[in-house]
Amino acid sequence: MTDVSTGVWLIGARGSVATTVIAGAAAIRTGLAAPTGCVTEQPDFAGAGLPGLGELVFGGHDVAETCLPKRAEQLARSGVLPDRLPELVHDDLVTADAEIRPGIGGPGSGSQVEQVAADLAAFRERRALDRVVMINVASTEPPAAPHPAHGSLAALDAALEAGESVLPPSSLYAYAALSAGCAYVDFTPSTGARLPAIDELARERSVPYAGSDGKTGETLVRSVLAPMFARRGLRVRSWSGTNLLGGGDGATLDDPAAAASKSASKQRVLGETLGYPVEGEVHIDYVGDLGDWKTAWDHILFDGFLGVRMAMQFTWQGCDSALAAPLVLDLARLMARAHETGRSGPVAELAFFFKDPVGTMVHDLAAQYETLRAWAGTP
Amino acid sequence: MTDVSTGVWLIGARGSVATTVIAGAAAIRTGLAAPTGCVTEQPDFAGAGLPGLGELVFGGHDVAETCLPKRAEQLARSGVLPDRLPELVHDDLVTADAEIRPGIGGPGSGSQVEQVAADLAAFRERRALDRVVMINVASTEPPAAPHPAHGSLAALDAALEAGESVLPPSSLYAYAALSAGCAYVDFTPSTGARLPAIDELARERSVPYAGSDGKTGETLVRSVLAPMFARRGLRVRSWSGTNLLGGGDGATLDDPAAAASKSASKQRVLGETLGYPVEGEVHIDYVGDLGDWKTAWDHILFDGFLGVRMAMQFTWQGCDSALAAPLVLDLARLMARAHETGRSGPVAELAFFFKDPVGTMVHDLAAQYETLRAWAGTP
Amino acid sequence: MTDVSTGVWLIGARGSVATTVIAGAAAIRTGLAAPTGCVTEQPDFAGAGLPGLGELVFGGHDVAETCLPKRAEQLARSGVLPDRLPELVHDDLVTADAEIRPGIGGPGSGSQVEQVAADLAAFRERRALDRVVMINVASTEPPAAPHPAHGSLAALDAALEAGESVLPPSSLYAYAALSAGCAYVDFTPSTGARLPAIDELARERSVPYAGSDGKTGETLVRSVLAPMFARRGLRVRSWSGTNLLGGGDGATLDDPAAAASKSASKQRVLGETLGYPVEGEVHIDYVGDLGDWKTAWDHILFDGFLGVRMAMQFTWQGCDSALAAPLVLDLARLMARAHETGRSGPVAELAFFFKDPVGTMVHDLAAQYETLRAWAGTP
Amino acid sequence: MTDVSTGVWLIGARGSVATTVIAGAAAIRTGLAAPTGCVTEQPDFAGAGLPGLGELVFGGHDVAETCLPKRAEQLARSGVLPDRLPELVHDDLVTADAEIRPGIGGPGSGSQVEQVAADLAAFRERRALDRVVMINVASTEPPAAPHPAHGSLAALDAALEAGESVLPPSSLYAYAALSAGCAYVDFTPSTGARLPAIDELARERSVPYAGSDGKTGETLVRSVLAPMFARRGLRVRSWSGTNLLGGGDGATLDDPAAAASKSASKQRVLGETLGYPVEGEVHIDYVGDLGDWKTAWDHILFDGFLGVRMAMQFTWQGCDSALAAPLVLDLARLMARAHETGRSGPVAELAFFFKDPVGTMVHDLAAQYETLRAWAGTP
Repeated sequence: MTDVSTGVWLIGARGSVATTVIAGAAAIRTGLAAPTGCVTEQPDFAGAGLPGLGELVFGGHDVAETCLPKRAEQLARSGVLPDRLPELVHDDLVTADAEIRPGIGGPGSGSQVEQVAADLAAFRERRALDRVVMINVASTEPPAAPHPAHGSLAALDAALEAGESVLPPSSLYAYAALSAGCAYVDFTPSTGARLPAIDELARERSVPYAGSDGKTGETLVRSVLAPMFARRGLRVRSWSGTNLLGGGDGATLDDPAAAASKSASKQRVLGETLGYPVEGEVHIDYVGDLGDWKTAWDHILFDGFLGVRMAMQFTWQGCDSALAAPLVLDLARLMARAHETGRSGPVAELAFFFKDPVGTMVHDLAAQYETLRAWAGTP
Repeated sequence: MTDVSTGVWLIGARGSVATTVIAGAAAIRTGLAAPTGCVTEQPDFAGAGLPGLGELVFGGHDVAETCLPKRAEQLARSGVLPDRLPELVHDDLVTADAEIRPGIGGPGSGSQVEQVAADLAAFRERRALDRVVMINVASTEPPAAPHPAHGSLAALDAALEAGESVLPPSSLYAYAALSAGCAYVDFTPSTGARLPAIDELARERSVPYAGSDGKTGETLVRSVLAPMFARRGLRVRSWSGTNLLGGGDGATLDDPAAAASKSASKQRVLGETLGYPVEGEVHIDYVGDLGDWKTAWDHILFDGFLGVRMAMQFTWQGCDSALAAPLVLDLARLMARAHETGRSGPVAELAFFFKDPVGTMVHDLAAQYETLRAWAGTP
Repeated sequence: MTDVSTGVWLIGARGSVATTVIAGAAAIRTGLAAPTGCVTEQPDFAGAGLPGLGELVFGGHDVAETCLPKRAEQLARSGVLPDRLPELVHDDLVTADAEIRPGIGGPGSGSQVEQVAADLAAFRERRALDRVVMINVASTEPPAAPHPAHGSLAALDAALEAGESVLPPSSLYAYAALSAGCAYVDFTPSTGARLPAIDELARERSVPYAGSDGKTGETLVRSVLAPMFARRGLRVRSWSGTNLLGGGDGATLDDPAAAASKSASKQRVLGETLGYPVEGEVHIDYVGDLGDWKTAWDHILFDGFLGVRMAMQFTWQGCDSALAAPLVLDLARLMARAHETGRSGPVAELAFFFKDPVGTMVHDLAAQYETLRAWAGTP
Repeated sequence: MTDVSTGVWLIGARGSVATTVIAGAAAIRTGLAAPTGCVTEQPDFAGAGLPGLGELVFGGHDVAETCLPKRAEQLARSGVLPDRLPELVHDDLVTADAEIRPGIGGPGSGSQVEQVAADLAAFRERRALDRVVMINVASTEPPAAPHPAHGSLAALDAALEAGESVLPPSSLYAYAALSAGCAYVDFTPSTGARLPAIDELARERSVPYAGSDGKTGETLVRSVLAPMFARRGLRVRSWSGTNLLGGGDGATLDDPAAAASKSASKQRVLGETLGYPVEGEVHIDYVGDLGDWKTAWDHILFDGFLGVRMAMQFTWQGCDSALAAPLVLDLARLMARAHETGRSGPVAELAFFFKDPVGTMVHDLAAQYETLRAWAGTP
């Protein structure tokens, strides 16, 4: 795949995750950093025909105006990027920043879809790209209100033509990407492509999509611990979690509606893995001083033999942008390859990367990995 | 397998684990308790031809003289058994206690092997058993000093005939079991069957053996977390652990030599799973007041993308006897079936149950489960 | 004080705390248990003229009908009381249960005040008591709606005579106790005596009162850690807490209004101790399977020299009834003595025992202890 | 005290702690940073006649040759100092580095004492200082072997004159400081001034000394939690600790002899505070990748009312240099003032700062603070 070039179009292209993705890809390409945290750099994926990490070309949309070099400096000050990296990859940041277009603010209309699709087409042409993958790494949206126009592509197209605002921004971006023949990935819990109408569009245009909600921290751990309890026949009585996080996502999730969407997604994985509903709540608290860092505490009460009560607790102290960025690179590579090989509609084989995977209810990380490896790994 | 009867011969038959095994099997048979924590009671093993939990017949060796009903009362007082269970299964405890013979104290000789083998044969005949599985749940031994007689069956037999004390008790029991045509399982980190001479004996007699060191707590969690870090390409920098435990095992492990054996076994799983050596120590502290309970704390320092340093910690508060007992029942059933189907020598497919499995270096719990299910699960 | 007898009248007299108080006092009196957790049994209070632990006479109100011996058996099964204690102190439990009267359910009226006061008077007379201390250990009430009648005793009396329901149950009990010449203690965060009208009544009748909200777990730890950070000049950036609890209190606090009252009380201690407001939330989650046990997790983010960011976390795994009961005994003794020595109105010197102490804003446990010792300790 | 100038002579003057002290004092003086973590900057010490933080003049001994500006850059890279601070206080670092003399490596002799005393005298004269405080912030020494010459000043002088090597380096420095009329503080657990002979010297020369072992992290927390358990009458059954640390001190303490010294000092505080011996071990593990950061985990098992078993755990994640540096500044100011006001011999009033305070067995942080405030605080 050496003579193929791949574009990565990021929604939220000047956010922490996107900045880390772009700076990190440059650092790896130039040998300044190892690809730590990149799944597709493991031996299981060598020779699997994926586009090279160093060949990815970046662009995107954002409503923010702080340029990438400046954002990178901010991230270096808070320890997300190595001290001198922003300076060392300055040119790459400037190049990517020049490919960023103004984002969509509120609920979208048909003309906005056309504008986004035009931006994508221009990017593909200008940079001579074989294909482009759009990845949503913007802030989490509140759950979208249901609307009859979501039910079929015909109804949706009619509503958009009539100038109705029936789609949240994430879905508008998904529509635009798919209609422009670009794969779409939702790394957030937002609605994105998860509407019957948009699924229909993806199949009609023979373009793949994937999502949603990148599995970066607490849920990652849950996706190996819950199967452990299940395989050992240990009965989980309650599973409670508290997440403390700062940064943009923390502020967004402090909004109860957005938090509810994220929290329900987190708790669902447990019931689906264990096979029975589990007592317990998940809290998401905004703690501004934590910046890009997150601390999660989980408490699990379980029964052993003869009903003896036991407990496990864990804390996870991670940097969300640094956990998300390599997965975004993985998804860009894997979706480009999926598109190239003719895949269309939801790609359930990428469940390994998501809290709330489309097309499957398997949440066991080990099983998800086997599925991924069998599908996309070294033949 | 309804008309087949299986004996379970426990070394350390009056210890906490054995007492919990015997009381628990009776509780499950009479419907007083669900088989929580029993792997072989999961749907994957229904109809796999295993002997019924309620059909197991118990006996064993022990140097202790406190009878099972009294031990069960002690365990109920410390919360390991439900309050009134000892009373409700009193008859089963008395029946099993009548099958307990005096154990071997120090290093063993040939005549002791013959005595143990004779005890096993008498048990099998008296209770009309089709086969017997010996399971070692005695206290951990210090590592055995190497001896030339361990290298081959001929050399070992010669040494035993000469009256030399060349085997630690666990190996003497293993020798006796195999020579009497009984399967042998080592649930402790003791030497047991892990000597070339004894392996030779198992193959010669066409009897299976398995072990060693039941994976009940901290290492169980490590066996799912380490693969998680590996699959995500996250680089573990250090992994430290402290175990606080009371009870007999705690007192034994406070002995540096025995602790060293257990600690090395715990740390090895990490290096073999991750593929690189990992900094960090494991401490085992005796805290008498914890009784049968154990608290473990693990601290994991790891690198994410671009070398960003992150940390995960967990604590595990479990009751070792309650975690071990259902696995002992699982192993009895699985080894009886393995023996019945003609299996001989080390059974690597049982790695799922052990910290230090014979015949394999796979420590990934999910992979171990797949191997187990494929081998012994529902066809 | 040997020839003086003291009554303890418990609101919620058949709840977990009250049952533990009564069973525990009997156990200590008969030498079955040491007074672990009793502050007034420390050397600092020997010879301070307090009534003996073994001389306390118990009675109370409750809406529940399960008798004390039965409640004690339930508590023994869940590990709050030692296994055989209910049987050993059976007579004491029966005696106390005979002194329990039906409690007040909803908002109270004047006639209910009279009934409660009559119950108290009858108890004092029947048992020939020199004085009686009423202690509220019932479930937490939601915050009471403000009412003009709360502002002065005259207004309150007028409203009660007019048959208006202006007082929550806890305040009605406080009114009855004080008007009957009995000291009143609120061990819950309910309104109790904390209304100007009731404070006026206490002063008029020369009776002392104290409260509120017994400091048993997480807040106890906060009351030593917050002063530690203050004395060292370390700047706390955020302090977050999650409490998991079962039992009756857990169910009550799952009600958002009641939780809000408790949560605000918990966070206030920090700001008042540190001298600046602190970011962070406190969650109280009901986890039924925890029963009488509580697990709290606190996460503290703080700045050291030159703004270096550090963190402390703690978990507290306690049994609330076992933590509260000895403090209830302490408060009964100390308030009886305060009453005897002529103390009237709020007793700020008892702040050591409370999350939200009346009459003071000092939350530093060490300072509170010094105040207590200077006031009530050995001369 | 405006016209008085004070020198601070640091043993280990190019180590992490010393570099942080010197850079931090400059940052505070120039308004670049607030004095977070400085006890003597709290209102209780305003107007207490202490020398100003900005007026301290630094020098010292070290065997290391990496200059202070370079060490400061290393510390900034590992997050101990703010990113650009080394550059901003470069001149101060250069000035202090010029006052650093080669340190003593092995066991010392009489001529070394003279050399160190001469260095001190030259520093005082060259910088026109009214007085100098020597503070030992070098790596922890192994416990010194007892020697008859330690028993009296006469015996010690005779041994030194005879050229015998009877003093560990820390004691040699203490001897030199006191004989040169400089106050001495030991911030490490090394022997320092804690020998009868050196105590005699301090009293003879009318110079104060203080120590030992700065209370920066785990023990700081223990010194508030242990009194909490004591005051509440809760019986501690076991208290276990594990410390993971990198940096120079971590490597030193990985040596069993040095660790034993530190570990015993940590556990002693518990017994002396609680009034009874407490089961439990303290581990100190070297984890190189933690750098200057330390993670401690403590597990406390305790009994509540009627013997109910409960547990508390805490983790402390701190940067040792950032915790130690402001205390070193505090001690310099307080000892200069003590010397000025004629204090001689051990200063027990400084126990607040130390794990193993000279002259007292009070380990309760709140009591220590009251003592400190009463002695040195605002009149």
